[in-house]
Amino acid sequence: MAAEKPVVAVTCTAPVNIAVIKYWGKRDEKLILPINSSLSVTLHQDQLKTTTTAAISRDFTEDRIWLNGREEDIGQPRLQACLKEIRRLACKRRSGSPEDPLPLSHSCKVHIASENNFPTAAGLASSAAGYACLAYTLARVYGVESDLSEVARRGSGSACRSLYGGFVEWQMGERADGKDSIARQVAPESHWPELRVLILVVSAGKKLTGSTVGMQTSVETSPLLRFRAEAVVPARMVEMARCVRERDFQAFGRLTMQDSNQFHATCLDTFPPISYLNDTSRRIIHLVHRFNALHGHTKVAYTFDAGPNAVIFTLDETVAEFVAAVRHSFPPESNGDKFLQGLPVEPALLSDELKAVLGMDPAPGGIKYIIATQVGPGPQVLDDPGARLLGPDGLPKPAA
Amino acid sequence: MAAEKPVVAVTCTAPVNIAVIKYWGKRDEKLILPINSSLSVTLHQDQLKTTTTAAISRDFTEDRIWLNGREEDIGQPRLQACLKEIRRLACKRRSGSPEDPLPLSHSCKVHIASENNFPTAAGLASSAAGYACLAYTLARVYGVESDLSEVARRGSGSACRSLYGGFVEWQMGERADGKDSIARQVAPESHWPELRVLILVVSAGKKLTGSTVGMQTSVETSPLLRFRAEAVVPARMVEMARCVRERDFQAFGRLTMQDSNQFHATCLDTFPPISYLNDTSRRIIHLVHRFNALHGHTKVAYTFDAGPNAVIFTLDETVAEFVAAVRHSFPPESNGDKFLQGLPVEPALLSDELKAVLGMDPAPGGIKYIIATQVGPGPQVLDDPGARLLGPDGLPKPAA
Repeated sequence: MAAEKPVVAVTCTAPVNIAVIKYWGKRDEKLILPINSSLSVTLHQDQLKTTTTAAISRDFTEDRIWLNGREEDIGQPRLQACLKEIRRLACKRRSGSPEDPLPLSHSCKVHIASENNFPTAAGLASSAAGYACLAYTLARVYGVESDLSEVARRGSGSACRSLYGGFVEWQMGERADGKDSIARQVAPESHWPELRVLILVVSAGKKLTGSTVGMQTSVETSPLLRFRAEAVVPARMVEMARCVRERDFQAFGRLTMQDSNQFHATCLDTFPPISYLNDTSRRIIHLVHRFNALHGHTKVAYTFDAGPNAVIFTLDETVAEFVAAVRHSFPPESNGDKFLQGLPVEPALLSDELKAVLGMDPAPGGIKYIIATQVGPGPQVLDDPGARLLGPDGLPKPAA
Repeated sequence: MAAEKPVVAVTCTAPVNIAVIKYWGKRDEKLILPINSSLSVTLHQDQLKTTTTAAISRDFTEDRIWLNGREEDIGQPRLQACLKEIRRLACKRRSGSPEDPLPLSHSCKVHIASENNFPTAAGLASSAAGYACLAYTLARVYGVESDLSEVARRGSGSACRSLYGGFVEWQMGERADGKDSIARQVAPESHWPELRVLILVVSAGKKLTGSTVGMQTSVETSPLLRFRAEAVVPARMVEMARCVRERDFQAFGRLTMQDSNQFHATCLDTFPPISYLNDTSRRIIHLVHRFNALHGHTKVAYTFDAGPNAVIFTLDETVAEFVAAVRHSFPPESNGDKFLQGLPVEPALLSDELKAVLGMDPAPGGIKYIIATQVGPGPQVLDDPGARLLGPDGLPKPAA
């Protein structure tokens, strides 16, 4: 059973990213080229990450993949596109470097195992982390050193933004072949140390419209989406990069909220309309605006992706008070001790003024839990063999 | 106490109208001139109407107004604008017609009483019916025969569309003084006899953002609203008029839904964002799309104004089945016998196929009740003195 010939295995991790200028709509469905540029914040992997092990061996007779311990169909078009692209890059590199220690490794079959340290179905952009991790890990195992934007992008558009830490833009590019549609870092994770991120996980049923189908329908039917992509986003990209460079939280927060709202507006302008926000999402939006109004400026900002969960940006000095405000408006139902996860948050008392201003009926259980995190680095290689998800036989290790 | 000199009193009724191409945003706040044209359907007054009595007498020492039996402040700017405009028109007319039976009546003070036959707070466009009725009644009592668009519009923009029955467009106009911003009938109420209207009254708390403030904020902050007004609505006005003329329900329904969605999209693009739709509204939207998908074409269409209530357009042959589908998805809580009001609707059984396709968890109590109605005529003069809301003394009659 065990492989007689050596198995080369690499294990890497990759982060989740949250767009503050949103990507919605493709100009090329096959190459996954967007109709506008986007800009994101990379979240810290201490709280949210994907871990992937890729192993190649001459003994493997076919490509295989396991996600969270369960074997999945490797034939999925997007997985195939990533594999094909990485092998093309590996092949190209080898042809120029004859002394490679693993000649022809790009022709070896690969086994891949991937796991998230957070619930896949929670709507936390797991596909971006997943495909970034896949691209990064495959690149290490096949010895590819070129830009990986295309490999990750072919899996999931926003995955290319998870290839870097800190603040990342995905330039839409202009070329039909997509060679200039690449991610690049705007600022590293150390650039804005006070920035904090709170993920408010909202109780909700199954998502009705997946984002791939959703954005396709939006491109086909929403007159507002085209206008947004052509006439609104270019200036917002410039302004958002400035906000990040200058650590201008006021403007950063305001523009983040506006762009989230505009993205959801174009979803509603789609036919049939798409609604990712629910009544709890709307309560959170209202809470944030009231909180900011009381303070007289933007101390907290929300953004929502293709689901009802809110991602909150704020500065470290505001975290404790805002979390207390969330607890006040959405009293935890049963798991009071697990309501707050991730970075520690000091308890804080709300002023009576703030309680009065929030002024909403409490909505118990509307928020399941909060994950407190911060800006983090890009993908990492794990050298510890104990971190590998595949055993020496190239099959998933039994769960610890 | 009773007036010694004659009181001249006129009583009129006016209808509610529902826009299928939406009005949202003013280019002139004072004159209430819109940033785009709009098109509406006038609802039948058997189900929804405002009744207004206006009385003038030389004995009245001040203008006074009672709404639903309660005296209100006549000094409100919009009421004052209507009064001033009608007196200006009356004065203009008198100066050219010396034999008027009531010379100088335009200088008489007026008493006004107005009532709705439906709950004012239900979010059923009561201000449009109210100001249309006010304009129409004041015109009769002061003997004004010119176009009343401006009088009604100064009270509430969309009120000018309630001055006609059937299908009505409010042309935005181009002039700075608003003289060309007028309502006109596209087709009379007899034009499309099969058309039916169902108002689904949704359980909801207080509206957070009134439409006057809401549209002002939208004009100031939503880039999408400007684009909609300039680049989308003009073609939609032409197409909607065609749909009405040709009684093309498929296209009428589709465009009605698209325009409602786009209006709510611009609300969401406003900063801070405005959300009039709630989770029940979204369930209704989903129900309509599933219903249509099952039938393979657009048999039912929704539209939503500045609140969560849905207004449904359909043809008479579809009413019974759709009402059964609504009952299935939103089982009435306690008032089963009052769930359906207005025009009679035959009970209908749902096919198992439809039940399966609707596929949602039932949401008991999400819809409070349904009002079934149809297209109706414009304002009417009531000759029956018994219909008067003011007694011979010019004060409201005690409630019967």
